Amino acid sequence: MSEIRQNIITKDWVIFAPERAKRPHEFVDCQPAPLPPIYRANCPFCRGNEYLDNTPETLRLGGENWQVRIVHNKFPALRPVGERVRSGTGIYHSVTGFGYHEVIIEHPEHNRHFALFSVSEIETILTAYLLRYRQILADQRIETIVIFKNHGIKAGTSLEHPHSQLAGLPIVPFHFRMRIDVAIRYFDDNGQCLFCDTIADEIAKEKRIITLSEHFVAFIPYAALSPFHIWIFPRRHFSCFSNTQPSELRDLAAVLKEVLARLYWGLGNPDYNFIIRSSPTGERDTEYYHWYISIVPRVSPTAGFELGTGMYINTSLPEDSAQFLRNVVVPDFP
Amino acid sequence: MSEIRQNIITKDWVIFAPERAKRPHEFVDCQPAPLPPIYRANCPFCRGNEYLDNTPETLRLGGENWQVRIVHNKFPALRPVGERVRSGTGIYHSVTGFGYHEVIIEHPEHNRHFALFSVSEIETILTAYLLRYRQILADQRIETIVIFKNHGIKAGTSLEHPHSQLAGLPIVPFHFRMRIDVAIRYFDDNGQCLFCDTIADEIAKEKRIITLSEHFVAFIPYAALSPFHIWIFPRRHFSCFSNTQPSELRDLAAVLKEVLARLYWGLGNPDYNFIIRSSPTGERDTEYYHWYISIVPRVSPTAGFELGTGMYINTSLPEDSAQFLRNVVVPDFP
Repeated sequence: MSEIRQNIITKDWVIFAPERAKRPHEFVDCQPAPLPPIYRANCPFCRGNEYLDNTPETLRLGGENWQVRIVHNKFPALRPVGERVRSGTGIYHSVTGFGYHEVIIEHPEHNRHFALFSVSEIETILTAYLLRYRQILADQRIETIVIFKNHGIKAGTSLEHPHSQLAGLPIVPFHFRMRIDVAIRYFDDNGQCLFCDTIADEIAKEKRIITLSEHFVAFIPYAALSPFHIWIFPRRHFSCFSNTQPSELRDLAAVLKEVLARLYWGLGNPDYNFIIRSSPTGERDTEYYHWYISIVPRVSPTAGFELGTGMYINTSLPEDSAQFLRNVVVPDFP
Repeated sequence: MSEIRQNIITKDWVIFAPERAKRPHEFVDCQPAPLPPIYRANCPFCRGNEYLDNTPETLRLGGENWQVRIVHNKFPALRPVGERVRSGTGIYHSVTGFGYHEVIIEHPEHNRHFALFSVSEIETILTAYLLRYRQILADQRIETIVIFKNHGIKAGTSLEHPHSQLAGLPIVPFHFRMRIDVAIRYFDDNGQCLFCDTIADEIAKEKRIITLSEHFVAFIPYAALSPFHIWIFPRRHFSCFSNTQPSELRDLAAVLKEVLARLYWGLGNPDYNFIIRSSPTGERDTEYYHWYISIVPRVSPTAGFELGTGMYINTSLPEDSAQFLRNVVVPDFP
């Protein structure tokens, strides 16, 4: 008989169906494909080709010989021009499309990505995230800042050059508000942070842990939405990514590298998204919210069942997926 | 400047981005592709091939010469065996995978579907939905019943034979609960049904209406998540699909046929999902909830932006999409 588990943080219910279960190694597509070239003459994100792209640059680390650049998205969903104006009456609510939509060019070379970066290269990227996050925090019109990455076509990107995105939103999305509401109710009921309690319990149980460092823990949630769905939490309680300390950032770079390298070498470079789930800008220092990173490899399709029922079907038990990832041998690379 | 609208019923925020806007006719893939054959010898859902499938039948309309059959899903996510047992302590909640997961075989012929069925054929399918829905309602262990359809590969189906699905769930999914909660708050604040108010307002405004009949209205929501996202509501207030009266069912068949035929002939047989969003089984007669059908054509991909931010980007204004669909010429077919 299948088991249905509830993710206590998102409140999502997930069906673990033994009849449909795959063993973790069945998700392995192939060995990682050959890398694209280190440079493409027509790629505006390759070093030396900056002139191909006329979008404004908002941050650069490393001067002429840059390591990371942040630029406006060429096809922005939101723009930092005009004013944030609410309008509408009765059942119709609207707000002008004021906001930020930027692209973080993670590396000057065309064919590198998180699983293949060195820890110090990832630390530089995270530093760029942090600096730009803090700059946008100064804009009082922004309620939510989200940093996310689409790796591969199934994850929604068509650009080969390693990049991630930042969106500064003039509202708090309802799904965020619902999660915060869940966390507040837990705090009110228990007097403790729901995330801190979950972290402590997962560390004690061990079986869903992928890696544990001084400042961070990576594990597969008890009710993971899909195979190899991974959460990375800071072990210290704080709500906003922007308050990450330098020693924590270095540690996070190592954890992120390890987790993404285990996915890369274990599953043959799967497509994935990652998202930094930080607090709304107006609630940066609360007892109830704890920021984290969610990694969602796109190894199984979602279909009408999920859309129709609001439930998920996962064919792989989190305990098995975690064990599989812990056993992956990551070569010394690069 | 783009406009961000909030869907007052789902609370989702949707960005309408003029820079990315497509005109409705740009979604037209092609003319509808040639139909598959009327019968396939290896299809277990074709009339005469019932012996190919050994899953139990739960409902049949029309005897030997059946018109609609309902059978167990061959790969069920949930099974109606054993007991519904809750377990888990602290932050871990689980329940056994007790439930129903069935397939509605909509027609004995292999190559027909909703846009091409006659109104009376659709009425027969809706009658089968209703009868099976009422049977499962008698099982007190089921909290939520969802009927949904995946049409086409992008909508999550690989089976060609026209079919839809029914899931009887032992829980109320969180996303459902959130919507109900929104409706309750609106009712408490305004003393009226949020859906009735929306229906009255959309009928008065006219510009987003696709079709209006004696008992139903179909329109594109003010903050449609994607191009041609459509809602069909009964005009009379009631919470549970199972309470649909015979005259209403006939009328619904005509509205569903018209809406899906307009999509078919206007957009070249797009892939789509539809979902009947009825009340939880324990809340079948309330002042605050109003059941409806949501149709989501899969004409634009969702990517990391949606997953990352919890917002949607729609490149087509609902008013324009509705006008386009109203103007589609539907031939007399079949």
